[in-house]
Amino acid sequence: MRLLRVVAVLAALTGLCLTAAAQSSLRGTGDLGIVIERADGSVCIVDTSARSILSCVDGLGDLSHASAVFSPDQRYAYVFGRDGGLTKVDLLERRIAKRVIQAGNSIGGAISDDGKLVAVSNYKPGGVKVFDARTLEPVADIPAFYGTAGERSKTVGLVDAPGRRFIFTLYDAGEIWMADFSGPGKPEISKLGRAGELPYDALITGDGRHYIAGLFGEDGLAHIDLWNTPVKITRVLDGYGKGEAKLPVYKMPHLEGWALAGGRFILPAVGRSELLALDAATFKEAGRVKVHGQPVFAIARPDGRQVWVNFAHPLNDTIQVVDVPSLKIVHEFKPGPAILHMEFTPRGHEVWVSVRDADKVEIYDARTFEKRGELKMRKPSGVFFTARSNRIGL
Amino acid sequence: MRLLRVVAVLAALTGLCLTAAAQSSLRGTGDLGIVIERADGSVCIVDTSARSILSCVDGLGDLSHASAVFSPDQRYAYVFGRDGGLTKVDLLERRIAKRVIQAGNSIGGAISDDGKLVAVSNYKPGGVKVFDARTLEPVADIPAFYGTAGERSKTVGLVDAPGRRFIFTLYDAGEIWMADFSGPGKPEISKLGRAGELPYDALITGDGRHYIAGLFGEDGLAHIDLWNTPVKITRVLDGYGKGEAKLPVYKMPHLEGWALAGGRFILPAVGRSELLALDAATFKEAGRVKVHGQPVFAIARPDGRQVWVNFAHPLNDTIQVVDVPSLKIVHEFKPGPAILHMEFTPRGHEVWVSVRDADKVEIYDARTFEKRGELKMRKPSGVFFTARSNRIGL
Repeated sequence: MRLLRVVAVLAALTGLCLTAAAQSSLRGTGDLGIVIERADGSVCIVDTSARSILSCVDGLGDLSHASAVFSPDQRYAYVFGRDGGLTKVDLLERRIAKRVIQAGNSIGGAISDDGKLVAVSNYKPGGVKVFDARTLEPVADIPAFYGTAGERSKTVGLVDAPGRRFIFTLYDAGEIWMADFSGPGKPEISKLGRAGELPYDALITGDGRHYIAGLFGEDGLAHIDLWNTPVKITRVLDGYGKGEAKLPVYKMPHLEGWALAGGRFILPAVGRSELLALDAATFKEAGRVKVHGQPVFAIARPDGRQVWVNFAHPLNDTIQVVDVPSLKIVHEFKPGPAILHMEFTPRGHEVWVSVRDADKVEIYDARTFEKRGELKMRKPSGVFFTARSNRIGL
Repeated sequence: MRLLRVVAVLAALTGLCLTAAAQSSLRGTGDLGIVIERADGSVCIVDTSARSILSCVDGLGDLSHASAVFSPDQRYAYVFGRDGGLTKVDLLERRIAKRVIQAGNSIGGAISDDGKLVAVSNYKPGGVKVFDARTLEPVADIPAFYGTAGERSKTVGLVDAPGRRFIFTLYDAGEIWMADFSGPGKPEISKLGRAGELPYDALITGDGRHYIAGLFGEDGLAHIDLWNTPVKITRVLDGYGKGEAKLPVYKMPHLEGWALAGGRFILPAVGRSELLALDAATFKEAGRVKVHGQPVFAIARPDGRQVWVNFAHPLNDTIQVVDVPSLKIVHEFKPGPAILHMEFTPRGHEVWVSVRDADKVEIYDARTFEKRGELKMRKPSGVFFTARSNRIGL
């Protein structure tokens, strides 16, 4: 009889436990993020409200260059690794949900506006592959053939565009292509034209209207206004280097959708210690900012009033903050050695900064510049928040 | 012994159950939303990926006019009801987490950029009250006193602004005030100036820079560029009614942050069957659009290429779609009787439309206009998606 009572109690406890466990494990995903631990093939899942690490997940291969996008429900991160790995990470279960090695060498990716397709831009073999976001089953393979000898170009600057489309740039070929998945069956591939010499990265604005590719082989950028039909590529900031000798470039700048601020694009120059300002209405030059070193990322605070800039080695211990209307540097500080990336909370009240060679991520108040927190991580690089899932191009 | 085995099995099952239950109840919050059931004091929690209703939650009092904001983790909706109710709804546990009756008659609310404060704009007693977002404990009470007889104005147009601030408009007083909670202790209240006759609503742009209040007592809008110091109010689109007789207004238009599209503000006129277009750089009139009836909501698709418009009774069975560059109507359709609200998914691939008098919400492809789904709800009105938590002003 006693044992029967034990059984009854255990059964009741099971019921209670189910409820309690279910409830205690519940959390929202809107304030989560990941930080890449670039030397360990690991990503740390972070909580931006608590300013804490929830868990670090191993097994993501070569993350020496990595980026990520998020599912619409913000439960999953899709991490694109240098080794061609595409890893779907479950931020709630804190484990790898699925992983495929889809190429030999890969640089970045994107997710379609409806959240159903994940695209990866590959160096080797050059081209873009597209996968079902839920299962990671292959959906399409778009080899970046160019020229007459069957060569395949590295692809860069891959973004999503409204209407279940992707746009990407062929580095070696100097071309921009679009893949439209809105119809049934195979995607429609359009070659939009020539961007210029060695376009190395690109961004799309948050309204999905302007695609801008930076050139490495010449001074200038290529611009497409996607509202124009037919779509055409125009050159902007042509010859911005003014014929002056370029500095040796040890680390390419990066273009992200955060470049638009206060009616201007603030973009890193290549081979110069400068930011370029472009009027967002006319696409004419609106000024320059001399900065501490060669800029790598120029990231607008969400209100567009400031742009925060980090720099290439050896000046990569510094962040400068630029006031957008005046184009003046209003703040400078040195969080530590090797600042690789910065990410703002979506309404912009705080910013997270990865300091690789101090094995930490620091958190700052984005208005007062006061330090609000610090998290130990191993060789942290990219910081990505789930709020990106709500924005075109990120 | 047999019972011991049963106990052992039950204990093991408990362990398995805990894990399984925890996992099966897990879901992301990034693609959730709520729909107000205005006659039943109920909100339905919806899944925008699955296009389904998860659960409807009762007990929210008078929702005949209601709006909502979301916590940064997107787990909680804060619903502001006409009866002065402020209800925190847990979207994962699908129940009311906390509810307070904080005034006699209330119109809307906002959440601070750091997600820690929820403010409510009250008609009676006129003023704004601010609460701790976690506990709903009162933090501040800002009575909207004006004139010399101790009267209190209704408050409207309450939005958050970067830096832990709120801006709101005093309808009866015709003034705009700001409350700054960034310092320690009591908030700093600033009276920014006079907006005009009976400002009835306001919006703030997604960059938190421009606050625009519509006037009911005269033709015109009041504009503040928050980047200017000192802050000042300027009149825009003054006298847009051109002295013509206004139509009787049965339903006031609403201003939301979605008004900015493709470099223009597209705003509903008051007492006219027109939309007003304002150049977002110069704030000069950029054109008008004659529309089907008196517009209530003019909501930009997230890519800013189109604005979708619904209308006041008796023409409220129709939606028109305006192409922003040309200001032409490119589509018109009639989902059903009493279309009260529209909400786009954050990257803009679909739009949800509440059709109150057909007791349904319809879901459309935002590019092809094809209907994608329909959900039965009782007298649905406002539709709000959790993605709002990532945007200033919503």
